[in-house]
Amino acid sequence: MKIQNTHYHTIWVSKNDSQIIQVIDQRFLPFQFIIQDLKTTEDVYTAIREMWVRGAPLIGVTAAYGMYLGLVEVKNEKNSDQAIKAFADYLKSARPTAVNLQYAVDFILNGIKSLNTLNKKIDKAFELANQLKEKEIENCRQIGTFGLSLIEKISQKKKGETVNILTHCNAGWLACIDYGTATAPIYLAHQKGIKIHVWIDETRPRNQGARLTAYELAQEGVPHTVIADNTGGLLMQKGMVDMVIVGSDRTTANGDVANKIGTYLKALAAYDNQIPFYVALPLSTIDWKMDDGKDIVIEERDADEIHFIEGWHENKITKVRITPDNSKAKNYGFDITPAKYVTALITEKGICKANKQDMEKLKK
Amino acid sequence: MKIQNTHYHTIWVSKNDSQIIQVIDQRFLPFQFIIQDLKTTEDVYTAIREMWVRGAPLIGVTAAYGMYLGLVEVKNEKNSDQAIKAFADYLKSARPTAVNLQYAVDFILNGIKSLNTLNKKIDKAFELANQLKEKEIENCRQIGTFGLSLIEKISQKKKGETVNILTHCNAGWLACIDYGTATAPIYLAHQKGIKIHVWIDETRPRNQGARLTAYELAQEGVPHTVIADNTGGLLMQKGMVDMVIVGSDRTTANGDVANKIGTYLKALAAYDNQIPFYVALPLSTIDWKMDDGKDIVIEERDADEIHFIEGWHENKITKVRITPDNSKAKNYGFDITPAKYVTALITEKGICKANKQDMEKLKK
Repeated sequence: MKIQNTHYHTIWVSKNDSQIIQVIDQRFLPFQFIIQDLKTTEDVYTAIREMWVRGAPLIGVTAAYGMYLGLVEVKNEKNSDQAIKAFADYLKSARPTAVNLQYAVDFILNGIKSLNTLNKKIDKAFELANQLKEKEIENCRQIGTFGLSLIEKISQKKKGETVNILTHCNAGWLACIDYGTATAPIYLAHQKGIKIHVWIDETRPRNQGARLTAYELAQEGVPHTVIADNTGGLLMQKGMVDMVIVGSDRTTANGDVANKIGTYLKALAAYDNQIPFYVALPLSTIDWKMDDGKDIVIEERDADEIHFIEGWHENKITKVRITPDNSKAKNYGFDITPAKYVTALITEKGICKANKQDMEKLKK
Repeated sequence: MKIQNTHYHTIWVSKNDSQIIQVIDQRFLPFQFIIQDLKTTEDVYTAIREMWVRGAPLIGVTAAYGMYLGLVEVKNEKNSDQAIKAFADYLKSARPTAVNLQYAVDFILNGIKSLNTLNKKIDKAFELANQLKEKEIENCRQIGTFGLSLIEKISQKKKGETVNILTHCNAGWLACIDYGTATAPIYLAHQKGIKIHVWIDETRPRNQGARLTAYELAQEGVPHTVIADNTGGLLMQKGMVDMVIVGSDRTTANGDVANKIGTYLKALAAYDNQIPFYVALPLSTIDWKMDDGKDIVIEERDADEIHFIEGWHENKITKVRITPDNSKAKNYGFDITPAKYVTALITEKGICKANKQDMEKLKK
């Protein structure tokens, strides 16, 4: 999507040197647009670990390129198997709970294992990383196409009046490579000239909505308004929301959705006000082995993300403390929206109800 | 309640000079504890307008003392009626929508109108302001006593295990004179040795939970944990909340509750998880003339409260921007919790269901 009217992906191979991978450093958004060069596996490890890049699809693709850079770095072809295992494990350890990270590293490992020279492995890893990137873009584009049909229906029902969409956190292209998941239908609708407006939950504690989703939509010229996480319920009561679209970190086989903390509260409000609540997700994020959202272990993050808020002050990123020194804080990363509150899932293979039977049809 | 182990009210007459009213300047909490002297009606106007003091009961009492200070300032007894009208109107204009402010000014005006000398009026205004203050304290204490019985029941059911209470915003003693409304049962339970723990919603955009409620509870030694507003739903799903107690800005005759934005979302989550949801309120905040919460006009506040967050940085209060420069924001002050999601109202005259019939019994 566009930044300052230029089309970007979140990650790409440098035009000047195919052994340099470039990424948008998301720590500084929306205040500064900084591109980082990744030249070594260590650079890639740092970029993932320190969250220069974030979002499951983007983490995966970054790690895939990390495998390629690792192969380039191998000095001694004779011991290359040992070296490859070492940097693969190293990359996987950057964010141990990220499923896509493990998947992407293994995807490259499997793809190169039968090749008998280092050069062939390097070429193959590069090819597979590019391929994975394209696949992620295509998935998002497909999610967008299916989701677009839902927005179009509401637009028609409203006789072309503005469709108001509420979203939570950043399931945007910055978390992916392009389009995003929850934002893909929004971008396609906007490109098609459908009148839309997006309510963006700021999404405490890390404010990914206020910082990243708002930035994305602003750069694309999509009308939007940032609100406190507390506000969505009132907007729904007042008839100011036509649909909700959110992303998902993990969806269990019965259709329960784990997503950024606070998603569940918006699902309840949507249900109470008879507003459709959609979850946009690549099928790869469905955990077919888990049958109940209650079994998902909820990640607990550093309490300082509650105590301190990061923002822009006097031309630099600054953290301010908002709680008393002697108060404790608790910081859970996501919550579970029970399937009964989910109107439908929007996937790259189509739209389905959030239940096992309907979901399994798409799997085939 | 206590601050640094000394008992305070939010407002009091100076021990050294009965023509000086002192208040805690709440703009600087929890970072700095600053006491301000109010010597003139202009000081009182500023304290109310600039939110050195906030919360309906406290605003009312401050205005009552403002009337007293106004009378002291009258230079020419002959034209005193005109002067009194002028400063009464001036005080009322400090926060035009605050019902308690209008009420308190009229309460003093009515109380002094039949007196024939300025000195008598001054003495009477002082007496009535003190009386109003005592009445507010007593109301909160009574709310506390009734609410305590609810906490005790849960504590008994849990065989003395910790009772986990979730609250939103600051319906604490800092919004009142002492005890608070939602916090009164909490303080009385803690004083009685009942094991409790309070989850405090930080309450964006102004963070009154993280800043004021956390400060209050910390100073009183009540175990508590600050959470993002997004978190309460998950905690309820996980069985980590036994009851919710919030305050109310206005309750309509049918039991719909207007309170700080976000309250409604917690009520939905409590309902979904079969957790009791209580609203603590003085009967004076019930609007008997309004029969439906939908008729309440929702205050819209400055969008900059969303764009900027205020906190403590390098030993001073600092605002940081969290949104892109070209994004809009919308800032509604409160939402409406429909009566069906309210388990009961806790008032100074007893506990009742949130419906017209039960509420009117308490009115008598």
